[in-house]
Amino acid sequence: MEQLLQETLNQIREPDRQAMAQAMARQESLAKPPHSLGKLEDISVKLAGMTGKIYNPVDRRRVLIFASDNGIVEEGVASCPQSVTLSQTINFTRGLTGVAVLARHFHAELDVMDVGINADFHQSGVRDVKIAHGTRNFAKEHAMSREQAERALQIGIEAARRAAADGIQIIGVGEMGIGNTSTSSAVLSTLLGLPAQQTVSRGAGINNAAYARKIAVIDEAIARWKPDPADPVDVLMKVGGFDLAAMCGAFLGAAAARMPAVIDGFISAVAALCAYRLNPRVAAYMIPSHASAEKGYRLAMEAMGLAPMLLMNMRLGEGSGCPIAFELVAASQSVIRNMATFEEAAIDDGYLEEIRGNKTFLGEA
Amino acid sequence: MEQLLQETLNQIREPDRQAMAQAMARQESLAKPPHSLGKLEDISVKLAGMTGKIYNPVDRRRVLIFASDNGIVEEGVASCPQSVTLSQTINFTRGLTGVAVLARHFHAELDVMDVGINADFHQSGVRDVKIAHGTRNFAKEHAMSREQAERALQIGIEAARRAAADGIQIIGVGEMGIGNTSTSSAVLSTLLGLPAQQTVSRGAGINNAAYARKIAVIDEAIARWKPDPADPVDVLMKVGGFDLAAMCGAFLGAAAARMPAVIDGFISAVAALCAYRLNPRVAAYMIPSHASAEKGYRLAMEAMGLAPMLLMNMRLGEGSGCPIAFELVAASQSVIRNMATFEEAAIDDGYLEEIRGNKTFLGEA
Repeated sequence: MEQLLQETLNQIREPDRQAMAQAMARQESLAKPPHSLGKLEDISVKLAGMTGKIYNPVDRRRVLIFASDNGIVEEGVASCPQSVTLSQTINFTRGLTGVAVLARHFHAELDVMDVGINADFHQSGVRDVKIAHGTRNFAKEHAMSREQAERALQIGIEAARRAAADGIQIIGVGEMGIGNTSTSSAVLSTLLGLPAQQTVSRGAGINNAAYARKIAVIDEAIARWKPDPADPVDVLMKVGGFDLAAMCGAFLGAAAARMPAVIDGFISAVAALCAYRLNPRVAAYMIPSHASAEKGYRLAMEAMGLAPMLLMNMRLGEGSGCPIAFELVAASQSVIRNMATFEEAAIDDGYLEEIRGNKTFLGEA
Repeated sequence: MEQLLQETLNQIREPDRQAMAQAMARQESLAKPPHSLGKLEDISVKLAGMTGKIYNPVDRRRVLIFASDNGIVEEGVASCPQSVTLSQTINFTRGLTGVAVLARHFHAELDVMDVGINADFHQSGVRDVKIAHGTRNFAKEHAMSREQAERALQIGIEAARRAAADGIQIIGVGEMGIGNTSTSSAVLSTLLGLPAQQTVSRGAGINNAAYARKIAVIDEAIARWKPDPADPVDVLMKVGGFDLAAMCGAFLGAAAARMPAVIDGFISAVAALCAYRLNPRVAAYMIPSHASAEKGYRLAMEAMGLAPMLLMNMRLGEGSGCPIAFELVAASQSVIRNMATFEEAAIDDGYLEEIRGNKTFLGEA
């Protein structure tokens, strides 16, 4: 398993500077003021860097959803019962949740994986890659073993590889797991060396006492287990979750396959940061989506030099921001492909002569 | 003409609070933490307020593009020759410009209107509603007569009415007119009582001298003509443009027709602010799109209490941000229509029993 991780990290290439220069030259040749389409231009250049091609269709889209439970919920840090992880996972397959509805709207598939839901079940549409019945409570012991963390990374890498093998052209990385804002804050606090106060948001339906408890639990666990910020796998195993580790693997796998991977909200951004700390080249294969309302989001993104495209005040998770971003990426491809160059847009004098002679004032003036 | 404006202003109703409450109740019944889909929820509530209905399809979409020339270009404030207004207007009809490509991508029509291009021509696909061959140079005289300003407002109102009559469900308000960042800054400075220094951006391809000149020209014109900030028509006639006035009319006409109108970038936002100053109720019918890179944009939006949804660093104009926003509005409709309620999302114990019994570990674990 460790071998797959090493192999994947080694496969991630620097972006193709030549293709990027070609895409940039194409954008500069289009009939508009320089860089006036902003990120619609930047995205097309970034995609060229990933694939080595100037034109990169993204018609085949998939959101990977890693569902898992977190032992830390024993500490009363979550506002929902743990059983919601299972019920929402079932609802993904029924097309009923936020990400399911948005994925349908934006023509994306879902790949729903059980990496560690605390229940035994079989549901059509849920891939059973369960590592354990949830992680352990990181207030009392390490969340998982090193082997389990590596297994979760492997699951994520394989999910990205499967997408590439299926002809998918862009993935999004989402999750479902009650308690995973706590694991994400713990991982983020460790990686950035920040107290939990700075990485934990109040969240919906949490009272003052629960909020203070969440912060204390995280700070104490970091002090106790001393996860090594230079070793993201150590951080994930001590205070992370199976979902986070698998999502980290998915970002790495996508980059190794030269495929764009969209970051959803806070949890997805923390998983992306773990991947970035394992190999900073991965950022060249990441596409941000929306600015999560969780305060840790911005910290994680800034640490990777990335910025969101959407200001939607969303905080649902599930990968719900990814389908929207897929469509923005698709729009960037319409621009680079279909806009006229200055040369094509030039109106020749003969034509101007003609439309002037042709003037008939058919309008209302 | 003044009568049409008055009639339109009087037709604009307060949003339907009952329909908004129903849409909000529906959003709260959906299986997600409260307000976790942020603006996707807000938009659905806002649309309910406009139309009085909870579900509001926006499959029929149109960008209104008002093209016009501005006499102020004589002062050397623009980086492009005036002839670009005509050539880009022709290119809209050929599907070659930024907004044309994005409209096609997002299934929107264009309604391209010549409100004052400085050329005589007839082009299929361009509606001839020309008021004059460009405005006059507002450094030397009023940009237009009061009658011309009212005529431009009427053209915009009629364009929105025509859209409603054609069954269009959402419009965007765009423009083409070399020199119209200058007119927009002049109008914005007047309405907000701010020096041009605060409303003029450098823009692309403008050097220091031209930038200083642009600021001086605007400050001097405002000092000389003393446009009345309490009378937006006076402001538009003295330092505005035919495009701005028509766009202002389009926002008013859409609101009167209870139809959402999307604000594009800086120029569109200034036109929206003129409409807002004529009747603040109009803001309930406006949907922001992207945060323009022009610094005046934020000032205009804040004055209306509106905030953008997209951070794309775009500054093309033309209405190019509108088609993207149409799709976000459409996504808001998918959410309110298709997400499961908590009741529908509840997984009953019998089903859980069944999937547990059914457990076969088909996966890789």
